[in-house]
Amino acid sequence: MHADPRHFAGHGLREPTTTAGRRLLDLVLRLRPALEAESRENDRTAAFPAHLFDEMRKEGVLGATVPDEFGGLGVRSLHDVALALGEVAKADAGVALALHMQFSRGLTLSHERQHGAAPARSLADGLLRQMGAGEAVVCGAVKDVRTTTALTPAEGGHYRLDGRKTLVSMAGIATHFVVSAQLHIPGEPARLAAPVVPRSSPGLTVLDNWDGMGMRSSGSVDIVFEGCPVPEDSVLPRGLLGERNDAALAGQTVSSIAMLGIYLGIAEAARDVTVATLKRRGDPPAAARTVLATADARLYALRTVAADALLTADRWSDDLGGDLDERGRAMMTPFQYAKMLVNRHAVEIVDDCLTLVGGAGYSNAHPLARMYRDVRAGGFMHPFNFTDGVEYLSNAALA
Amino acid sequence: MHADPRHFAGHGLREPTTTAGRRLLDLVLRLRPALEAESRENDRTAAFPAHLFDEMRKEGVLGATVPDEFGGLGVRSLHDVALALGEVAKADAGVALALHMQFSRGLTLSHERQHGAAPARSLADGLLRQMGAGEAVVCGAVKDVRTTTALTPAEGGHYRLDGRKTLVSMAGIATHFVVSAQLHIPGEPARLAAPVVPRSSPGLTVLDNWDGMGMRSSGSVDIVFEGCPVPEDSVLPRGLLGERNDAALAGQTVSSIAMLGIYLGIAEAARDVTVATLKRRGDPPAAARTVLATADARLYALRTVAADALLTADRWSDDLGGDLDERGRAMMTPFQYAKMLVNRHAVEIVDDCLTLVGGAGYSNAHPLARMYRDVRAGGFMHPFNFTDGVEYLSNAALA
Amino acid sequence: MHADPRHFAGHGLREPTTTAGRRLLDLVLRLRPALEAESRENDRTAAFPAHLFDEMRKEGVLGATVPDEFGGLGVRSLHDVALALGEVAKADAGVALALHMQFSRGLTLSHERQHGAAPARSLADGLLRQMGAGEAVVCGAVKDVRTTTALTPAEGGHYRLDGRKTLVSMAGIATHFVVSAQLHIPGEPARLAAPVVPRSSPGLTVLDNWDGMGMRSSGSVDIVFEGCPVPEDSVLPRGLLGERNDAALAGQTVSSIAMLGIYLGIAEAARDVTVATLKRRGDPPAAARTVLATADARLYALRTVAADALLTADRWSDDLGGDLDERGRAMMTPFQYAKMLVNRHAVEIVDDCLTLVGGAGYSNAHPLARMYRDVRAGGFMHPFNFTDGVEYLSNAALA
Amino acid sequence: MHADPRHFAGHGLREPTTTAGRRLLDLVLRLRPALEAESRENDRTAAFPAHLFDEMRKEGVLGATVPDEFGGLGVRSLHDVALALGEVAKADAGVALALHMQFSRGLTLSHERQHGAAPARSLADGLLRQMGAGEAVVCGAVKDVRTTTALTPAEGGHYRLDGRKTLVSMAGIATHFVVSAQLHIPGEPARLAAPVVPRSSPGLTVLDNWDGMGMRSSGSVDIVFEGCPVPEDSVLPRGLLGERNDAALAGQTVSSIAMLGIYLGIAEAARDVTVATLKRRGDPPAAARTVLATADARLYALRTVAADALLTADRWSDDLGGDLDERGRAMMTPFQYAKMLVNRHAVEIVDDCLTLVGGAGYSNAHPLARMYRDVRAGGFMHPFNFTDGVEYLSNAALA
Repeated sequence: MHADPRHFAGHGLREPTTTAGRRLLDLVLRLRPALEAESRENDRTAAFPAHLFDEMRKEGVLGATVPDEFGGLGVRSLHDVALALGEVAKADAGVALALHMQFSRGLTLSHERQHGAAPARSLADGLLRQMGAGEAVVCGAVKDVRTTTALTPAEGGHYRLDGRKTLVSMAGIATHFVVSAQLHIPGEPARLAAPVVPRSSPGLTVLDNWDGMGMRSSGSVDIVFEGCPVPEDSVLPRGLLGERNDAALAGQTVSSIAMLGIYLGIAEAARDVTVATLKRRGDPPAAARTVLATADARLYALRTVAADALLTADRWSDDLGGDLDERGRAMMTPFQYAKMLVNRHAVEIVDDCLTLVGGAGYSNAHPLARMYRDVRAGGFMHPFNFTDGVEYLSNAALA
Repeated sequence: MHADPRHFAGHGLREPTTTAGRRLLDLVLRLRPALEAESRENDRTAAFPAHLFDEMRKEGVLGATVPDEFGGLGVRSLHDVALALGEVAKADAGVALALHMQFSRGLTLSHERQHGAAPARSLADGLLRQMGAGEAVVCGAVKDVRTTTALTPAEGGHYRLDGRKTLVSMAGIATHFVVSAQLHIPGEPARLAAPVVPRSSPGLTVLDNWDGMGMRSSGSVDIVFEGCPVPEDSVLPRGLLGERNDAALAGQTVSSIAMLGIYLGIAEAARDVTVATLKRRGDPPAAARTVLATADARLYALRTVAADALLTADRWSDDLGGDLDERGRAMMTPFQYAKMLVNRHAVEIVDDCLTLVGGAGYSNAHPLARMYRDVRAGGFMHPFNFTDGVEYLSNAALA
Repeated sequence: MHADPRHFAGHGLREPTTTAGRRLLDLVLRLRPALEAESRENDRTAAFPAHLFDEMRKEGVLGATVPDEFGGLGVRSLHDVALALGEVAKADAGVALALHMQFSRGLTLSHERQHGAAPARSLADGLLRQMGAGEAVVCGAVKDVRTTTALTPAEGGHYRLDGRKTLVSMAGIATHFVVSAQLHIPGEPARLAAPVVPRSSPGLTVLDNWDGMGMRSSGSVDIVFEGCPVPEDSVLPRGLLGERNDAALAGQTVSSIAMLGIYLGIAEAARDVTVATLKRRGDPPAAARTVLATADARLYALRTVAADALLTADRWSDDLGGDLDERGRAMMTPFQYAKMLVNRHAVEIVDDCLTLVGGAGYSNAHPLARMYRDVRAGGFMHPFNFTDGVEYLSNAALA
Repeated sequence: MHADPRHFAGHGLREPTTTAGRRLLDLVLRLRPALEAESRENDRTAAFPAHLFDEMRKEGVLGATVPDEFGGLGVRSLHDVALALGEVAKADAGVALALHMQFSRGLTLSHERQHGAAPARSLADGLLRQMGAGEAVVCGAVKDVRTTTALTPAEGGHYRLDGRKTLVSMAGIATHFVVSAQLHIPGEPARLAAPVVPRSSPGLTVLDNWDGMGMRSSGSVDIVFEGCPVPEDSVLPRGLLGERNDAALAGQTVSSIAMLGIYLGIAEAARDVTVATLKRRGDPPAAARTVLATADARLYALRTVAADALLTADRWSDDLGGDLDERGRAMMTPFQYAKMLVNRHAVEIVDDCLTLVGGAGYSNAHPLARMYRDVRAGGFMHPFNFTDGVEYLSNAALA
């Protein structure tokens, strides 16, 4: 019998929808005590807990989204990835954010391998094999600092890569980086491209400069590229720069939507800590009842909309038979609805929990203080922050 | 291809989940132009449009939730009932509210017939037959005015019923009333009971006193009972007065949850009117984009949570094999989460639409003015208003 | 001893700041029972209560803002005008809105008379004399319907005026209209201009078409101008069309800011009705305490910011010695801050009151139903609605 | 000419209302660069910057609220204290919070000296002299950890003090503590009392255990009292335990209300950082304009209500001629309105600023990250948190 009233509501983001997702969830739940044991200290020091990722590598967690024929768990459901990340986030949201890097690369590389052009397929295939064998840990590097990261032709048939990326979570243990760049070939229009760069490349420096307000265990450092040589066949092609490409919204959805689970996990954990505290204290005052009931209602909404957006993405993910622009929008629109709601209300719920718990929660020694700082990162996640989301959604409504 | 971005999101409250629900929806959509044609006038005069209900009776709409063996459509899915009511509400929310009366009685009487005690079964069976044949229109009468409505023993083995009920939508055409009353038998503890009273009963007066701020076509009048004779076998038994009875939450959910569709329908219709206006005007100002995008995100949330709560209720509805108290809570809790959210945000969305459309929407000739008044009724619907909902949900959380 | 906790807070919008303001407030308070006596019926019928205005004319209320040398009360403080309008609005907000028309004209014409160019002074002087003698009732007509209202040269040295204005409150008894128009003289750039048009002008039709959702007693009808002849010396000059003119923000502030008092008065009255109801009922449930406390805090904020914006406008109003652009912004910016807050939170407070009072408040017979409809008009008042206010205030912040 | 639109609005919390307040503000503004220079490092290390307080002692800041005949600045206006604290908070809110400790003691001890009973007068007199001479730094110690702090009779005519206090800001340099305690004398009803305990007392331990999420430079540590001897004449008497004592609300207001300035200062500083960033970036996107305009409107409201509550407190502060219970309520009620609004909206404004600035603000190196953590402390300040405030204000409304 379920004591928790939230268990009564719907099934969204409660149970995995696939067998592979179930295996991942079980692994994660087994590892959670180890994460919990040091999350306070990881938060304090803002150090990336590489040993935990080594553990997760050994247990197969890092290969969760790698196809099973390569030794991965073969999880393909974004819903199930989000569910697992949420359970990690309840113990340490920074670790969940870093872990998402690897999961996301597994998902998008699997897609390249199946549906990309021939050279991209081969590149993706190679990386996935290494990921499945536990030899590769792959980061996406998306956000530029100041200058635009650019690929330009260099001597010897190579390109050179120059630029600086920030907020590259998990970079401390990455073996490869998939870098969002612009490809500038003289006489041709500028294109978007994603070079895959091994960590050992000359000219690549991983800084140790992460000091976030929250998500402190995520190791979200900067990477500097100074004339890194990149072979032509190590570049995943993307579209023309500046070209509207709704089909590409699908890939952007796949690579980011599972992060919804992280912020939901934080809000749920905050709520559980708080309810436990209130129960210990006995009959709550009037305002506490009101704050609690309305927080629970919003948490229910967040869980339900996140599940809906994730399941929608899963449904469209393999459906490449129709209009690809429509598919892109069909995946991105509910994602952005859900992201806008989660970004706002998950923060509010943790804030409400602080109100309910009181000053004790304001000490860094209390989990709520960490959650309050961690949960605020949601608004900065890809692909759209609030202002970009307003632009996207208002255009969608008025199209 | 779908032009409307909302079509991309999930499936909740978009398509019926049952064949019977599909038939009802088709009927409703066919009748909608007739409803639309006079909704402005019905709103102006606050007159109950009995002829529309006569039409709906002929078309079989009034028997939608009556079992098909009795000539009804046999709709049992609360989700599908809510979906159909939402489509009615887009044309005339007051009519939808009145129609819910009959749908709700069909659903709860069908349950009494299947699972009630022997006399209740027979009573329900008879009423449903009449409803299926288009001979009975049945209202619930729940809310007392001032005094408590009471059944007391009278001469001749009858009870007498005394009291006054308010907000009895559709009473103008009702043939029977199912009245929430207290049964006071000297020497016994007071019980709850639901006498079924034909309109023709001596001592029963249907007033013509509805002048709501909104929902003006719903005919939500008062009924006065002054010594109405009620035979013993016309009383549906309920529990002891004041006794906590979580099992009874299931019936309360069934009889009210489909109304969520009405308020969602109003918000959707308001949004559609508004987007059409903005499109006509061309490039919207900064604040309009922001208001629109955030309203759409909330509308998505409402649709998704309402669907989740309805589908959860549908799933538990026929499952009487386990702990009935748990079943009651499992149905009511998500309903109350969803109700609290819909009550608040549907009002906000219509308010946002008024902001976007501007002063034109403030004239009673504009549909937004009606919707703004109609949608505010949601907070007063059964079984819990905001303060009762806080009580229920905070108790659920802290149990 | 003060029983009401709100009396403890500040002095803003509680007491008049001038002797003339005190006289006006006393008159208004004496008339209030008469307004209250028929506000329900005025709301029901949407008829403009001309006899009440006749009474107010006799008592000198209509001349409140006319200089005392012309027989007016000589109220010059916008704060005191807002305070008096708030007390009217507690009884009948539509009457307050109509009354504001006359008060606003008195204030702006007094300014024209003192500081305008010679012909404008003389025009203003004449009108004010008539207003002070109880012979003139003057409406501003600002908002165009569809086409732009235009003055163009006609034969005989006259202009002709063509167009249609909407939401002209109090037009039913107006003797003159001050019309916002564009002046198109061939070969010259288009200008803004404000012709003063007597009601008896040929080609002027006052419609009887007001059916607002709220403010139903305000008689906010349309006026049609079809070739109305306007002598050149009946036109108050304004600036060039399309020219940025921050100095003009001062006049726009003076002519609209006192309306803040109306929406504040509605919110206060709603709160008082609600607290009286809660007191009758005894110990309120948890959520009711929370809703009440937070509503009271917001009401305090609204009263305080409205008072601050009004007193700021009063302070700058007569200070024409410095940079007139700066003066314009100095008056408009706090007005827009206050308007944005009042428009949003006064609506929320009345909504909260409905939540606290429950379904009884949803009947048109209950004052809250009227207040709920009336208060929503605030967002449509001049000079800036929400989207225009965002434009103005964000430009101000980023200048 | 004022470039900043906020300068146009009102005068509340902009200029000191007293000469002494002006002197304090000038001192504070001169010291601000020194505070700014190390606020980032103080935040990082959570170390209390004792040398800054030594500087402030030398400059006379620590004696700001000590009467001038004792060498203090003689600031008595709560408004002016709040204004100065706000300017400190713009540089380092933790320092402002610590500084408030000393200011608050100066204010309340001055009141004891003037209006207390004879022994209390003498005690207050002595402490104030030492404060004025720069020899005493006095902390209030209010919040118990787990057990209640109690004074009980000990041998030799002394009391002994036992208990543990938390969140005692500035304790690191305090020479005395004014401790909120219960006085238990056998055979008498329990009373409230405030022993003044020198730091050197046996049994008194100042811990070094502050690790707040924010306000990290405030040194808000715990103090342990284990059998500290307290002479009878070192105890400031308070009322009976559990007795309702509205008169005492006045003292509670005086000792806490100036903290409103701190949270307002944080919000203003966050807004200024953000506007500077937006200006650098050029034309802001649609949503940014909306967020900025609504944040500015709320900031205006907070400044205005805080000023109103502070000026109200100043007005009543010296008025002891009437009903002291009424005076207590008249000071506390607007304080609680303002506190509830500041606690909520100052947090929201800083959150909005993070949204506008984007991911850069999430790094601890950015001032917004510190402000986001600091501003959340407001909800935990004395005397009422949110739930207690709801209780107080709803009782006030329904009295």
